[in-house]
Amino acid sequence: MKELTVIKIGGNIVDQPAALEEFLKAFSKYPAPKILIHGGGVMASELSAKMGIEVKMQNGRRVTDLDTLKLVTMVYAGWINKSIVAILQKLGCNAIGLSGADGDLVPATRRSPEPVDFGYVGDVNPVDINSSLLESLLGRGITPVFCAITHDRNGSLLNTNADTMASSLAIALSSDFYTRLIYCFEKEGVLYDQENPDSVVPLITRANYQTMKDNGAITGGMLPKLDNAFAAIESGVSEVCIKHASNLGNNKGTVLR
Amino acid sequence: MKELTVIKIGGNIVDQPAALEEFLKAFSKYPAPKILIHGGGVMASELSAKMGIEVKMQNGRRVTDLDTLKLVTMVYAGWINKSIVAILQKLGCNAIGLSGADGDLVPATRRSPEPVDFGYVGDVNPVDINSSLLESLLGRGITPVFCAITHDRNGSLLNTNADTMASSLAIALSSDFYTRLIYCFEKEGVLYDQENPDSVVPLITRANYQTMKDNGAITGGMLPKLDNAFAAIESGVSEVCIKHASNLGNNKGTVLR
Repeated sequence: MKELTVIKIGGNIVDQPAALEEFLKAFSKYPAPKILIHGGGVMASELSAKMGIEVKMQNGRRVTDLDTLKLVTMVYAGWINKSIVAILQKLGCNAIGLSGADGDLVPATRRSPEPVDFGYVGDVNPVDINSSLLESLLGRGITPVFCAITHDRNGSLLNTNADTMASSLAIALSSDFYTRLIYCFEKEGVLYDQENPDSVVPLITRANYQTMKDNGAITGGMLPKLDNAFAAIESGVSEVCIKHASNLGNNKGTVLR
Repeated sequence: MKELTVIKIGGNIVDQPAALEEFLKAFSKYPAPKILIHGGGVMASELSAKMGIEVKMQNGRRVTDLDTLKLVTMVYAGWINKSIVAILQKLGCNAIGLSGADGDLVPATRRSPEPVDFGYVGDVNPVDINSSLLESLLGRGITPVFCAITHDRNGSLLNTNADTMASSLAIALSSDFYTRLIYCFEKEGVLYDQENPDSVVPLITRANYQTMKDNGAITGGMLPKLDNAFAAIESGVSEVCIKHASNLGNNKGTVLR
C-alpha cells in the first residue's frame, strides 16, 4: 500500500516567519505524497481588534459570527494559505492552496445552535470528503495545503477546527493509503512532566494511554488531542505523531499506535 | 476542437451581493468547460481605510506595498474567492478557487521598479501558464475560479491586473481549445454614445476598430480594454465579448473578432 503523510501545523508556528520558513523547508523535503493543514494564529485576533470586531464568547469558546467568518476566511484562506503556497513553490514543492469548499473537497455540517450557538462553525464527517480529486492531485505530484475553512454545500463557508480537519482528511484517505498523521506544534510531544521538555513519552498505545489517564500522567489540553488521535487510528489511520515543528525531519516526538 | 469559455467579472459586480448571485446563477448554467476570473471591488479599499493602511499612488496608479499586498490577498484570494466558490457549489457548479501561485498555475514577473516602482505588482506571460493542470481540472468537470493574485516563483505573491490575467489564461488555453473570452462589467458593451446604453456596437473587427479610433467613436478607458482584447485574438483567442454581467446568458453585448 502506498504511504501518505498528513501534517498539521499549529497557529503558533504560522505566526513566526522564521520558524514557519524553517518548518516549510523541512516539509518541502518530506517524502511525497503529503498534505499540509495549517492553523490560524493570532493574525485574525490582531486584525479583529484593528477592525473593531468584537470577540464574542459562549461557554469559554469563540463564536463565529458573519464578521468573524469574513475575517478568518480572509486571514486563513487568503494571506496565510497563499503565503505558505508561495514559499513552498520557491522551495520546489508544487503546492496548491485549498479550503474545504474548493472542489467540494471537505463539506461540513453547521453545528446545531442548541444548546450553544457557535455561529458559522462546521464539523466534518470523513465519509463526505472528496478523496478522488485529492488523489488525482497527489498523483500529479501536487501537494494540497488546506486552511480549516469548509462549506455547508448551501452557500455558506464554515470555520472548522484544524486538528479535526487534519484527522478527517487522514481518515478519508486511509482506505487507499498507509496514512501517517503528524501534529506539529510548539512542544516536543506528549510530556510526562510539563516543565521538562526532555520528558517526551516516545510511544503511546491504546493500552498504556488508559493507564496514563488513570494515574494522571496526561491531563488538560492534551487529552482531547489524544482522544482525537486514537479515534483516527480506530478509523483507519496507521500512525499518529505529535512533535515539535522543528523536528519534522527527524524521529523525535511521541508516536501513537 | 473543444470549446472553452474564460469569463472575467468586474469588481463592481462583486461588490453587489444580489447582482453577484444573479451573475453566478447564469455562470453556473453556462456550458462547461469554463473558467472564471474575478476582480476585487471596493472591499479592499474599505478595509484599507479601517486598518489605517495609507493608499499610496504613483503617476495616478496605486502602489502595492507589503501591507497592501496582504490586504488584497486577504480580500481577493480569501473572502471574495471562497465566497464565490461556496455560492457556485450551492448552484451545482463544482468550482475550485485558485490564485496564480496554486499549482504554479500563473507565475508572473514583478514589474521593474524603473521608471516607477509599483511595488508587489506582477505581469503574466501566457507561455508560463501551467495549462496542463488546468486542463486536467477542466477534464474532471471542475470549474477554476481565479482571483488576480500571482507569484514570482521566488516566494512573493504579486498583485496582477484581472483583465490581463483573464486574457493570459484564454491565450494559454487557446492552443488546445476554441476559446471565447468574455468580459462582464456594468455596461452593456462598447457604446457609440456613452450616455445611451442602447447604442451598443454589436461587432468590432480589427478593420473597423481602427476606423472607430480614428473618428473618435471609441475613447478613454475602453481603449486599453479593446487593445488588450485584440492582442488576445492575435495570440489565438477565437472571440472576445464585452457585455453587461446580467447578459451572460444571452447574446447581447459587443463581439470582437
